Amino acid sequence: MTEHTFYMDLALQNARAMKGQTDPNPLVGSVIVNDNRIVGIGTHLKAGEPHAEIHAIRMAGEQAKGGTIYVTLEPCSHYGRTGPCAVAIKEAGIKKVVIATLDPNPLVAGNGVKILEEAGIEVIIGVREEEARQMNEVFNKFIVEKKPFITLKAGTTLDGKIATHTLDSKWITSAASRRDVHQLRHENMAILVGVNTVIEDDPELTARIPNGRHPLRIVLDSTLRISLDSKVVTDKLADTWIFTTQQAASEKEQTLINKGIKVFRTSGSSRVDVMEVVNILGEQLISSVLIEGGGSVHASFLEQHLIDKVVLYFAPKLIGGKAAPTFLEGTGFAKMADAVDLDHTDIIKIGQDFKFIGYPQYRKGGEIF
Amino acid sequence: MTEHTFYMDLALQNARAMKGQTDPNPLVGSVIVNDNRIVGIGTHLKAGEPHAEIHAIRMAGEQAKGGTIYVTLEPCSHYGRTGPCAVAIKEAGIKKVVIATLDPNPLVAGNGVKILEEAGIEVIIGVREEEARQMNEVFNKFIVEKKPFITLKAGTTLDGKIATHTLDSKWITSAASRRDVHQLRHENMAILVGVNTVIEDDPELTARIPNGRHPLRIVLDSTLRISLDSKVVTDKLADTWIFTTQQAASEKEQTLINKGIKVFRTSGSSRVDVMEVVNILGEQLISSVLIEGGGSVHASFLEQHLIDKVVLYFAPKLIGGKAAPTFLEGTGFAKMADAVDLDHTDIIKIGQDFKFIGYPQYRKGGEIF
Repeated sequence: MTEHTFYMDLALQNARAMKGQTDPNPLVGSVIVNDNRIVGIGTHLKAGEPHAEIHAIRMAGEQAKGGTIYVTLEPCSHYGRTGPCAVAIKEAGIKKVVIATLDPNPLVAGNGVKILEEAGIEVIIGVREEEARQMNEVFNKFIVEKKPFITLKAGTTLDGKIATHTLDSKWITSAASRRDVHQLRHENMAILVGVNTVIEDDPELTARIPNGRHPLRIVLDSTLRISLDSKVVTDKLADTWIFTTQQAASEKEQTLINKGIKVFRTSGSSRVDVMEVVNILGEQLISSVLIEGGGSVHASFLEQHLIDKVVLYFAPKLIGGKAAPTFLEGTGFAKMADAVDLDHTDIIKIGQDFKFIGYPQYRKGGEIF
Repeated sequence: MTEHTFYMDLALQNARAMKGQTDPNPLVGSVIVNDNRIVGIGTHLKAGEPHAEIHAIRMAGEQAKGGTIYVTLEPCSHYGRTGPCAVAIKEAGIKKVVIATLDPNPLVAGNGVKILEEAGIEVIIGVREEEARQMNEVFNKFIVEKKPFITLKAGTTLDGKIATHTLDSKWITSAASRRDVHQLRHENMAILVGVNTVIEDDPELTARIPNGRHPLRIVLDSTLRISLDSKVVTDKLADTWIFTTQQAASEKEQTLINKGIKVFRTSGSSRVDVMEVVNILGEQLISSVLIEGGGSVHASFLEQHLIDKVVLYFAPKLIGGKAAPTFLEGTGFAKMADAVDLDHTDIIKIGQDFKFIGYPQYRKGGEIF
C-alpha cells in the first residue's frame, strides 16, 4: 500500500491547492505512473475546464499507455465537455486505476468504475478515502442535498466569550488566527452574519489575503435595521444579500435594492426563518456558507440542525463576566444529555491560539433548544 | 548533553512518581552513575525521611566513589535529620554533580553548590531545568511566598458553559476527564468550592482513585447557608473548613463546630474576602489548593490575581443558552485588552475531551474586573 498512498497523497495535495477556485465542482487530483516514474499530474482547476484525469493524460501523452492512474475521485461516466473520464482513461491505454473515493452522488456512484472494469482495467478503491471525502465535504453535501454546507466560526476566549460585558471585542484572537479566518472566507462562497454584527462592528466581511476571493455577504435583518452607510451596503467589494421578514418596511427595502442589494423576504413575521434562508441559498447554488454571527444567530442555526462543521479559535485569555456574550446563546438545551456532540474533532496550535475543528452529530429524537 | 539528559530524565521520572506524598517537601529524584553504569537511584518519599541523594548514595555504597550524581534539585546545605546532602555527597567521594535547578528559596540558593565546589567537586547546573522547576511549581511558590499555589479547574462545553440554563451539569466531561480530576484532587492539599456548589450538587469532593488521598475540603459560605446534611459536613471522609463573614449566625457556627467543622470568620461583611482566605491557608501550611467553584468564585480569585494555574477540560459539546452559566462570571473585564493572558499553554486529548493547561500572566497596571 505504501506506493499507492505516496502517489495518492501527491494527487490529494494538488487537488487541495485549488481550494476555493473549483466551485461548484469538487477538488480532484490525479497522478499517472508508468514503470515507477511519474509521467503525468493533473488537477481540476475550474468549473467548465477539463477534469484532473484529462490534464494528467495530456501531460503523460504516449507514456500513459500501460500505466497506472491515481485519482482522488471516481472518474466520471457522463458526457460533458470532455467526454467521460472513464472512457478517456480506457482510450489512453491505462491498465490500472487507483481511486480514493466513489462519487458521492448515489445516483451515479460506481458507474465510472463499471466502465473501467468492463474494459478490463484493474480498479482499486479506497486508498486515502477519508482524506479525499473530507477534502470535498462541501461538494459532497451539496451534490446530494442541494443545500449549502454550513460552517460556524467563532473566535473566543477560553471562557467562551466573544466580547466583554461592554461589548468590546477587539481583539480576541491573534493575528495568525485572523489570517486563517480570511482563508476560511476565501474558501466559502458566502459569509453570513446577523444585523447586530453589522450595526456594532461595521465589518467588510471580505477575504483580506493575497488573491483572496471575497465571499457573497449575507445579513439576517428581520426589520431592515441595517444602516445605509454600512460598508456591506456601500463598498461594492462583494455582493450583499439581506434576508428579512414580512415586517420590514417597503421603502427601506426599495432603497436597499436601488443600492444594488438583493433583498429576500422570508415568510417569518418576527424572526428570519433560517431553514427558509438555507433552502433559498441552495436554490441560488450557494454551496458553502461561513456563519460568523453572534451567539443568537449561531443558536438559531444549531437548533435547526443546520451547522455541518464548527471551527473555533480559542485565544489563551480569560475575560469573565456574567453578562459578557458567548458564541452560542439563545435558550440553549435544558439537559446536558441533549447537548450536541461533536465528532472527528481536532485541535491545533495556531500562533498563540488553539484552532478547534469538529462536526456536530445530531441525534434524532433528542430535545432541541 | 545526551547522557546528562538521559540520567536526569530518569531522576525526574522517579521524582514525579511521588507526586502527592512528599508535602510540604518538594519532589526530588537522584541517580548515581559510575563507569557508565547506574549504581544508585533515589527519590524523596516523605517529609521527615531521607532526601533523594541519601537514598541513592546508600544504594550505591562503595560504588558512589568517583561517580557522578544527578539530582533534580540543588543538594541542601542545612543540617536536618540526615545532615546536609552536599556534605554527604562529598563524603561519598562523588566527583561530579549534575543539577537540574537551584533551590527556589533565594536565601539559600547556591549554598549547596558552594559546599560542593569548595570540596573540588565539578558542578553542572541547568540540565532539564524547566521540567524540574515545573514539577515543583507548588513548592517553589510556597517556600518563597508562604501562600498556596492555586489551580482553577473547570469542566466545560466548547461554548464555555458549566451547566445548562436549568443548571443541569451531569455530565459535561467524559469518564476519562473525571478520573483525571480525581488525580488532581489527590495532588492538591485542599479543594475549594463556593457554598452554591454544595447546595446544588452535594459533592463529596474526594479523590476517588486507587490510593487517592482526600484533600481538605474548603467551602466559602458568607452567611453559613450550608445544609447540616451536606456530605462535606457529615461524611467524615476528610476535614472540612468553612470560611464565612461577620454576617453569619453564631448558633449555626457553633452547630457546625460541634460537628467537627472548622469555621473561620473573615473580616468581610457581605462576601468572604478571598485574599484573607489565602493568607489564612498559607499560615495553616496548606501549600496547594484546587478551586472547583462556580464562575463567581473563580472570578473573585482571578480579580485578585490569585490563580496560578488554569486546568480546563473541554468536552466536544455545544449546549448554548444566554442564561447558562460559564466557568468565569463576576463582572468581567471591560476591555478585551485587559483580559488575563495565559502563558506556557498546552492542550492534550484525554478520552474524547481536550485538557488545557495554562498559567495566568498578570500585568501590573492592567485594569481588573
